[in-house]
Amino acid sequence: MTDFFRNIPAIKFEGPNTDNDFAFRHYNPDEVIMGKPMKDHLRFAAAYWHSFAWPGGDPFGGQTFDRPWFGDTMEAAKLKADVAFEMFQILNVPYFCFHDADVRPEGNSFAENTKNLEEIVDYFAQKMDETGIKLLWGTANLFSHRRFMSGAATNPDPEVFAFSAATIKTCMDATMKLGGENYVLWGGREGYETLLNTDMGRERQQAGRMLQMVVDYKHKMGFKGAILIEPKPQEPTKHQYDYDVATVYGFLKDFGLEGEVKMNIEQGHAILAGHSFEHELAVARELGIFGSIDMNRNDYQSGWDTDQFPNNVPEMALAYYEVLRAGGFTTGGTNFDAKLRRQSLDAEDLILAHVGGMDACAAGLKAAAAMLEDGKLEAARDARYAGWDTDAGKGLLNSDLDSITASVQANNINPEPISGRQERLENLVNRYL
Amino acid sequence: MTDFFRNIPAIKFEGPNTDNDFAFRHYNPDEVIMGKPMKDHLRFAAAYWHSFAWPGGDPFGGQTFDRPWFGDTMEAAKLKADVAFEMFQILNVPYFCFHDADVRPEGNSFAENTKNLEEIVDYFAQKMDETGIKLLWGTANLFSHRRFMSGAATNPDPEVFAFSAATIKTCMDATMKLGGENYVLWGGREGYETLLNTDMGRERQQAGRMLQMVVDYKHKMGFKGAILIEPKPQEPTKHQYDYDVATVYGFLKDFGLEGEVKMNIEQGHAILAGHSFEHELAVARELGIFGSIDMNRNDYQSGWDTDQFPNNVPEMALAYYEVLRAGGFTTGGTNFDAKLRRQSLDAEDLILAHVGGMDACAAGLKAAAAMLEDGKLEAARDARYAGWDTDAGKGLLNSDLDSITASVQANNINPEPISGRQERLENLVNRYL
Amino acid sequence: MTDFFRNIPAIKFEGPNTDNDFAFRHYNPDEVIMGKPMKDHLRFAAAYWHSFAWPGGDPFGGQTFDRPWFGDTMEAAKLKADVAFEMFQILNVPYFCFHDADVRPEGNSFAENTKNLEEIVDYFAQKMDETGIKLLWGTANLFSHRRFMSGAATNPDPEVFAFSAATIKTCMDATMKLGGENYVLWGGREGYETLLNTDMGRERQQAGRMLQMVVDYKHKMGFKGAILIEPKPQEPTKHQYDYDVATVYGFLKDFGLEGEVKMNIEQGHAILAGHSFEHELAVARELGIFGSIDMNRNDYQSGWDTDQFPNNVPEMALAYYEVLRAGGFTTGGTNFDAKLRRQSLDAEDLILAHVGGMDACAAGLKAAAAMLEDGKLEAARDARYAGWDTDAGKGLLNSDLDSITASVQANNINPEPISGRQERLENLVNRYL
Amino acid sequence: MTDFFRNIPAIKFEGPNTDNDFAFRHYNPDEVIMGKPMKDHLRFAAAYWHSFAWPGGDPFGGQTFDRPWFGDTMEAAKLKADVAFEMFQILNVPYFCFHDADVRPEGNSFAENTKNLEEIVDYFAQKMDETGIKLLWGTANLFSHRRFMSGAATNPDPEVFAFSAATIKTCMDATMKLGGENYVLWGGREGYETLLNTDMGRERQQAGRMLQMVVDYKHKMGFKGAILIEPKPQEPTKHQYDYDVATVYGFLKDFGLEGEVKMNIEQGHAILAGHSFEHELAVARELGIFGSIDMNRNDYQSGWDTDQFPNNVPEMALAYYEVLRAGGFTTGGTNFDAKLRRQSLDAEDLILAHVGGMDACAAGLKAAAAMLEDGKLEAARDARYAGWDTDAGKGLLNSDLDSITASVQANNINPEPISGRQERLENLVNRYL
Repeated sequence: MTDFFRNIPAIKFEGPNTDNDFAFRHYNPDEVIMGKPMKDHLRFAAAYWHSFAWPGGDPFGGQTFDRPWFGDTMEAAKLKADVAFEMFQILNVPYFCFHDADVRPEGNSFAENTKNLEEIVDYFAQKMDETGIKLLWGTANLFSHRRFMSGAATNPDPEVFAFSAATIKTCMDATMKLGGENYVLWGGREGYETLLNTDMGRERQQAGRMLQMVVDYKHKMGFKGAILIEPKPQEPTKHQYDYDVATVYGFLKDFGLEGEVKMNIEQGHAILAGHSFEHELAVARELGIFGSIDMNRNDYQSGWDTDQFPNNVPEMALAYYEVLRAGGFTTGGTNFDAKLRRQSLDAEDLILAHVGGMDACAAGLKAAAAMLEDGKLEAARDARYAGWDTDAGKGLLNSDLDSITASVQANNINPEPISGRQERLENLVNRYL
Repeated sequence: MTDFFRNIPAIKFEGPNTDNDFAFRHYNPDEVIMGKPMKDHLRFAAAYWHSFAWPGGDPFGGQTFDRPWFGDTMEAAKLKADVAFEMFQILNVPYFCFHDADVRPEGNSFAENTKNLEEIVDYFAQKMDETGIKLLWGTANLFSHRRFMSGAATNPDPEVFAFSAATIKTCMDATMKLGGENYVLWGGREGYETLLNTDMGRERQQAGRMLQMVVDYKHKMGFKGAILIEPKPQEPTKHQYDYDVATVYGFLKDFGLEGEVKMNIEQGHAILAGHSFEHELAVARELGIFGSIDMNRNDYQSGWDTDQFPNNVPEMALAYYEVLRAGGFTTGGTNFDAKLRRQSLDAEDLILAHVGGMDACAAGLKAAAAMLEDGKLEAARDARYAGWDTDAGKGLLNSDLDSITASVQANNINPEPISGRQERLENLVNRYL
Repeated sequence: MTDFFRNIPAIKFEGPNTDNDFAFRHYNPDEVIMGKPMKDHLRFAAAYWHSFAWPGGDPFGGQTFDRPWFGDTMEAAKLKADVAFEMFQILNVPYFCFHDADVRPEGNSFAENTKNLEEIVDYFAQKMDETGIKLLWGTANLFSHRRFMSGAATNPDPEVFAFSAATIKTCMDATMKLGGENYVLWGGREGYETLLNTDMGRERQQAGRMLQMVVDYKHKMGFKGAILIEPKPQEPTKHQYDYDVATVYGFLKDFGLEGEVKMNIEQGHAILAGHSFEHELAVARELGIFGSIDMNRNDYQSGWDTDQFPNNVPEMALAYYEVLRAGGFTTGGTNFDAKLRRQSLDAEDLILAHVGGMDACAAGLKAAAAMLEDGKLEAARDARYAGWDTDAGKGLLNSDLDSITASVQANNINPEPISGRQERLENLVNRYL
Repeated sequence: MTDFFRNIPAIKFEGPNTDNDFAFRHYNPDEVIMGKPMKDHLRFAAAYWHSFAWPGGDPFGGQTFDRPWFGDTMEAAKLKADVAFEMFQILNVPYFCFHDADVRPEGNSFAENTKNLEEIVDYFAQKMDETGIKLLWGTANLFSHRRFMSGAATNPDPEVFAFSAATIKTCMDATMKLGGENYVLWGGREGYETLLNTDMGRERQQAGRMLQMVVDYKHKMGFKGAILIEPKPQEPTKHQYDYDVATVYGFLKDFGLEGEVKMNIEQGHAILAGHSFEHELAVARELGIFGSIDMNRNDYQSGWDTDQFPNNVPEMALAYYEVLRAGGFTTGGTNFDAKLRRQSLDAEDLILAHVGGMDACAAGLKAAAAMLEDGKLEAARDARYAGWDTDAGKGLLNSDLDSITASVQANNINPEPISGRQERLENLVNRYL
């Protein structure tokens, strides 16, 4: 054991009335909800990125966190891994997620990066074996290093495309080797700062080809997990091509990949795109591309990605309601790609942030399941559209403007509006919370 | 002549140095720009909607405008048409646009609406014949009447779908009869207020079917113009399905209509969706669905659609630059679906708003043409991507992850970033203004 | 009894487990919280404005509500009053609020308006006497009529200032006569659409003078209630002078009125100004000008005032926590200046909206009281600042730059940062919900 | 000479038609505008912060710039100064601005920081003497180092207050020694991340006392320049106390400092607060606290501070119009606290960014001066309020509600609204551009 979490106990379920900060009030992993243990619904994953690789900086200030594993050496990387797996065990999360840049020292060449990644992958494999903790997804960080400043797949320089492609391959290999259940692509630099220097058409083709290569390689290597795209509208770039779920869908259709790629949806990214989280989840479900979630909320008064741990249970309930309506997760799960506030310096803060976030998710899930099982909400929705289930309703969709017009004329159709009853439904939701 | 514009002269081009409020400083219809008269580039259309049908209300206050044609009678509708055509002539705009509800009295039934519309269409036909003014597009207002409060095509009530379909048919008929060059669909109520009462999947199917029927009817009737969708992210509804150009593209692909339908893009709607106007224009161009524009800017500090007349020439220049790069308008044009400020009560205000807006567009067009003809901007863009035009670049797009990785390894590819030179390009743009 | 709420029962507390839509789950008026009945903490008031005077219109569509009292006659106004008082009794709210324009027919002159108002005030007085329902506040609508389009107190036309002043007097008289506990000023048109036509300095002076006259008249007439300003940043105007609590405070200081005027704070207005609701409440408390609240939330994805009924209990808890820290309401209360969604056509919707809103407030209040009584949150806050309670801390605030610098040098002061523990505190809040 | 700007010539005015990137098109320093050379109107200052101290990082990526002076040694600091003064000369800017942390190596103690600052101040003094370049303002960076993460003056830890006070003293001393014309305070960490751990009342008192100490020290040391506060609503903190000009005004009034402190207003910060730049300038002018400007625009589609170089001339014109209406700068000036885009790696980019920004300001100033000299805009404004200059208008402001009401009754005052003519005025502005 390292010293980092010294004195912090493993977190257990103690129920809503406990006075213990270091306990779950709602997350009871084996409690059965709708026929399945809570842990199998939620499929929690802790993320390396913000929890272990972020130093606490922001655009106006530098590092605030003082972690013994900071530093760009293999020794530091292994210490980081030791601490990370200790946290996974303390929290009892079944999964973790990582970018290559989170886990290995930065090398001076592609070859060195690859070697470093392979070494740490072996180290992970051993730890996963010892602890039973699994990999939800792996991904390549193609946004932090200055070589990616103008894009990875969409870079004006073909060499950056090549470097990116090769890096993705190594990360897919690592994910495969570790039994990862998904592979994620977030295009933090795939977009533009100014249209004045951007050839959007070319860049779109480049992105489409890269995605095709990823899908081809997945099949070639026999990877059974899902390929996931994580939409985000902007930040760091002014405009990112994977703006939101609907935008990515159009892109997938264009390249014939809508059956191959699913969505990893983040609450904070939804908010930045002008949507609610449940909207993005519902869109993905309706389009058949729902995959996984990143559970980092945004501050509603901040115009950038605050990536905070979730804490508003009513919002979580609406999100998991959409997840359950989509049939729940298959390969996906609930990743905490969330970050501590910059002032939360202590090891305890890191644990408590996850404890609170996991509890908010669990409470939300329970409310969502109750809503769905009770059925009142779905019954109201179905009743509202009942007219479309009649023969007349069905026929209408197979008609044409001339015939419909004739019928409207003949029958003097002049429909009266019907209450949408939004307040009643909102009250109903609050009953389950 | 009516009295409304009494004492207001026809607006003529007098050049930038005139002291006359009632003159164009930049819009010189027959001045040739890039081989084409300015009027054929800009294809200005005045809109009935805000100019003649809006009473000056807002969510906190009622009518401020005192127009002799207000009132729901055929007589009033004809007076309105008289005044409208007088304005078109004063401004020397070649086109106009309308919704059915703008131009005819509201009837008590579909039949009455149809009869009223037909009567006013005949009245228009005569005026168009007399003046040479043409119809850029027609459209159906499926959002103001309470029957549409929960959607038109996407209504939970099939009868509203039917009423909407029939209304669209009459408006397409009217547009055809008047020689309109496009038919527009704006789905102001095609969206939701709350996901709790919404079946997004059904509504999407309904919308897709309606659009297919519109396209089928277009072909059946032999209409040669374009079908245009006008994206808007929200307002009046919390979320509208035609969120932005990229979203609509995915929808079109889903229903196989991407070759049948183009975009009518509005500056204000672009802003509400989190985009710049030029972004939306560029996306439409790259996706092959650019059609027409509505020239109403938004106030950057207001979170709703302010629909103001454009006045910022640098912004217009960037917009027309994208239009010119798309090859210019074919059936589309520059519609002023812009509204006076609520306090701009006078007939003069209505004329001067258009004069200023037309001049801003003309100045923007001239700058855009100069940029394009000069070629520096496009040369810089091309140079930035030149690597992709080499054999190596082309080959890369047809390669695969394994081969690329081998090459990166073998050649120790480690690209250095290259300046994006944004400030230089921004300075360059300012030279043409 | 009118027919409007036929078949809707009086709403009673039935506890969280009831299956009855028409019951309170959390609002138990006489339940004692922190030594005071819940009803005396919350001091609920129903508002005339959105509940009875709004026809369901929005910027893109007209009336959707079909109410028997619509129409500008005294008879309609009395029917409206009958129905309103029936609703107040059904909901068991102790208070109501109104604008003059909500309750009386619009006259053709100031004199007619005054006469109409007086007649309805007499009608109210009788109803209040019969039911025991009281007036939380009255106010003048100086924003809907076209005469106010360019401002009331801040109008460029002195006659509008005069008309506004006279109207305020009649509304203060009405409020006084009905035993109102506060008088409210919301300056919906006190601002500008464009700086180009605005003399901000003059308008500020005009607003200051009007407020002074209001305060003077209050004292002259012996009104014992509070004068309240309701801040809002924009909408309908581009910029409103009463932007937020801090802005109004500076204005009050300038005119020496910070001891005479308090704030009526609305959740939706806070959001539009870029603040959380609890922020505005906390600022008002710290500045000593907290008065009352309007409980209408905004939709976080909509850039205009959606004025929805509150439903997020965690947000309500944080709001009432600040209210309780301010010592609770004195003359103020919880007004529902909230509106039904435009599609919520039925009488039942109006009742259920209030039931849900009142329950969300009650649940929030209970959580807030539990937090405050438990004391952990305040203890953590106090501990964080404990250094300032030492002699050294106190001395520092009375020192000067030279002395402090000498001390920092001499003692080599080099402070280490201390965790802000935000996540722990957020978890703590969730325990009480 | 260093090598950094090798081959970049000094920038000269060549007029609008030059084809030279490295030339001014509009900024002609000695051209007389409204009786004063352009350089004395604009009083340009280049800033150390973004131009020399920022490494090109953002929240998702690290350093992109490769500058020979990066590194935390005195030698590097002097090289940086050499390059900076070369840039000031190339651009022919009369002023510069700095934070202590921009110019000196970071020490391990207050004493070391002070010693380092003093050494670099001496180095600056010599360079200023050689070049004639002056200091517009100095300031202390109390936000980047981790010790300030929870505030400087408003920190819960008194030792951080002390460290901050001492640091401010050293920066005021440096500013005084270098003949600086102002001293600036930007409170990047003076605010909160969460209300839950914040004692807003205490923090406000701390901030007030610190400001009083600054003012006292200014008088004690005989500094003749202005003390300037730079408002910003948020970022890095969720909420900053110096939200906008109006908020700071209320704060100044509370501590009796409104005659001692003025505003340094930044375009980007105005936008983040929901205002236009010209709004903030106008408010400061009307409140008598206008001081200086930071000329960094925001991207309208990005919710964070993009700090870009200005390029929209119409916006600049409206800004300088307000500056001219305020009487122009006295001790203040036009500081470029603007940053290159992260991808603009080259020395040329740094020069061209300033050239373009200076030209946009100069073109804006010329347009503003033309508007003011022509007088049409001010004449229209005066005419709009003419009623207030009559005896009746003046009397109204000294009247009371009773008297006004009697007069409205007696004279049956019923004002008709008058057009605000916004579009005409917007057209008018465009004439001067």
